[in-house]
Amino acid sequence: MKNLVNHLHAFVNETSITTEEWMKTIQFLTTVGQTCTPIRQEFILLSDVLGVSALVDAINNPPVKGATESSVLGPFFTEDAPDIEQGGSIASEGKGQYMYVEGTVRSTDGTPIPDAVIETWEADESGSYDTQYKDRDHPDCRGRLRTDKDGRFGYRAVTPVAYPIPGDGPVGELLITIGRHNLRPNHLHFMVEKSGFRKLVTSLYPDGDPFLSTDAVFGVKKNLVVKLEEVNDDAEARKRGFPKGGSFKLLKYDVVLVPLDEAKAALEEFSKQRAKNAAA
Amino acid sequence: MKNLVNHLHAFVNETSITTEEWMKTIQFLTTVGQTCTPIRQEFILLSDVLGVSALVDAINNPPVKGATESSVLGPFFTEDAPDIEQGGSIASEGKGQYMYVEGTVRSTDGTPIPDAVIETWEADESGSYDTQYKDRDHPDCRGRLRTDKDGRFGYRAVTPVAYPIPGDGPVGELLITIGRHNLRPNHLHFMVEKSGFRKLVTSLYPDGDPFLSTDAVFGVKKNLVVKLEEVNDDAEARKRGFPKGGSFKLLKYDVVLVPLDEAKAALEEFSKQRAKNAAA
Ligand SMILES: [Fe+2]
Ligand SMILES: [Fe+2]
Repeated sequence: MKNLVNHLHAFVNETSITTEEWMKTIQFLTTVGQTCTPIRQEFILLSDVLGVSALVDAINNPPVKGATESSVLGPFFTEDAPDIEQGGSIASEGKGQYMYVEGTVRSTDGTPIPDAVIETWEADESGSYDTQYKDRDHPDCRGRLRTDKDGRFGYRAVTPVAYPIPGDGPVGELLITIGRHNLRPNHLHFMVEKSGFRKLVTSLYPDGDPFLSTDAVFGVKKNLVVKLEEVNDDAEARKRGFPKGGSFKLLKYDVVLVPLDEAKAALEEFSKQRAKNAAA
Repeated sequence: MKNLVNHLHAFVNETSITTEEWMKTIQFLTTVGQTCTPIRQEFILLSDVLGVSALVDAINNPPVKGATESSVLGPFFTEDAPDIEQGGSIASEGKGQYMYVEGTVRSTDGTPIPDAVIETWEADESGSYDTQYKDRDHPDCRGRLRTDKDGRFGYRAVTPVAYPIPGDGPVGELLITIGRHNLRPNHLHFMVEKSGFRKLVTSLYPDGDPFLSTDAVFGVKKNLVVKLEEVNDDAEARKRGFPKGGSFKLLKYDVVLVPLDEAKAALEEFSKQRAKNAAA
């Protein structure tokens, strides 16, 4: 609280904000809160576009050698993703271009991790999450699955596309007002949990997207950028369960989780380093 | 925006806030927004209890010798106060102890200001504003009147009492969490407007209240503390329009407004002084 009050007061002092500007700020924050619903979180979006979410993430999840890095949660995670089987689809048929995602969840020492829970969600081919459709009657482009006994996972999804963060709310208006674009590069969200390991919240960013270097929410990290393989093989597409066959993109990625003791050590080391830098 | 982002990031860095704490903060802010209604402004209340409103007020309305000082607007101003006549009552009969408020609105050079608009509002004898009653069907303990040709005003009201800021919302919970009391000393709100003069938002604080020195929203200023006269004169009470007669409190106060040019000069001088202090 002390730090919060100090910074708030310093902000007011430095900017000499007028009473009208402050009342507009109050009204803006009120509208941000009132734009939130059980499936829309405009305050997370505000935190995201101001780079605060990325910073909180960076401070709490320092990178560990060999492990998958974290990225911002974003405002589109919901609690109602359906459970899917191995090889199942998180997207209803007809949504976008076919993409198959597969890999193994491992520990930093290479050991496969069975029974890890993977939550995954993405925008559809028009760049919209299911929650952005007014007539949403069921979750789409999101699902929950568990790794098999060898730590493997595989599921059908759609090829992600770049999309604008919601422009119909106060945060979208803010970006326009301050002259910033509102686009996120194409990405697929993941959350991977297994007891004994640091919870991983991240996204994978297929390469070649023009917005990788100017992500509106500062989520991209170099080693989360991945290559998609193009598979032009009708039989293979059908074998993987894509009803229309044809071709599909293949995203191969091994997720590496950090054991809790390593995570704790990394956090302590990182905190020490930060304290040292702050003192310098 | 730059100052805002700098302070937000510095706050996160200094506190090493955890992801869970940040998500709780997001949820808190969301609830603050969602607690707001057309007649309840929880974000103003948050700004008030953090001392930000008082600071914004101090920066924008530097004191001018001889003029009435400003104080925080608070979250209870509404747009729907009824017009009342000179000598009329802002409170419905039966609300609290009788109080009569009278004085003259003047300029800093002593000239009376006719036709100034006074908005005034207060809590009732139980310390609640009309907006805090679930069954509010009309405004009460608030009114709007104009000074007469000699700048005078007079109206009936109720003797203010100390009251807790709303405890049924997230800001009330916050104060409990951080171990702060939630009381404001007794006061009567005013807003006085007249073209050519700085708009005055203030309150008068009758003396003798134990919470004058620890106001939960930092609104009290020494020269806004006033004495109430006790008038034990049934005839006088009836003459003033109090239906039950008996006794009443008398609040005599001359409001002094600042002409716009003087206000501008004071603001410039104060800004210079602040810049000098900041540089030192
Ligand atoms: Fe996303
Ligand atoms: Fe008040």
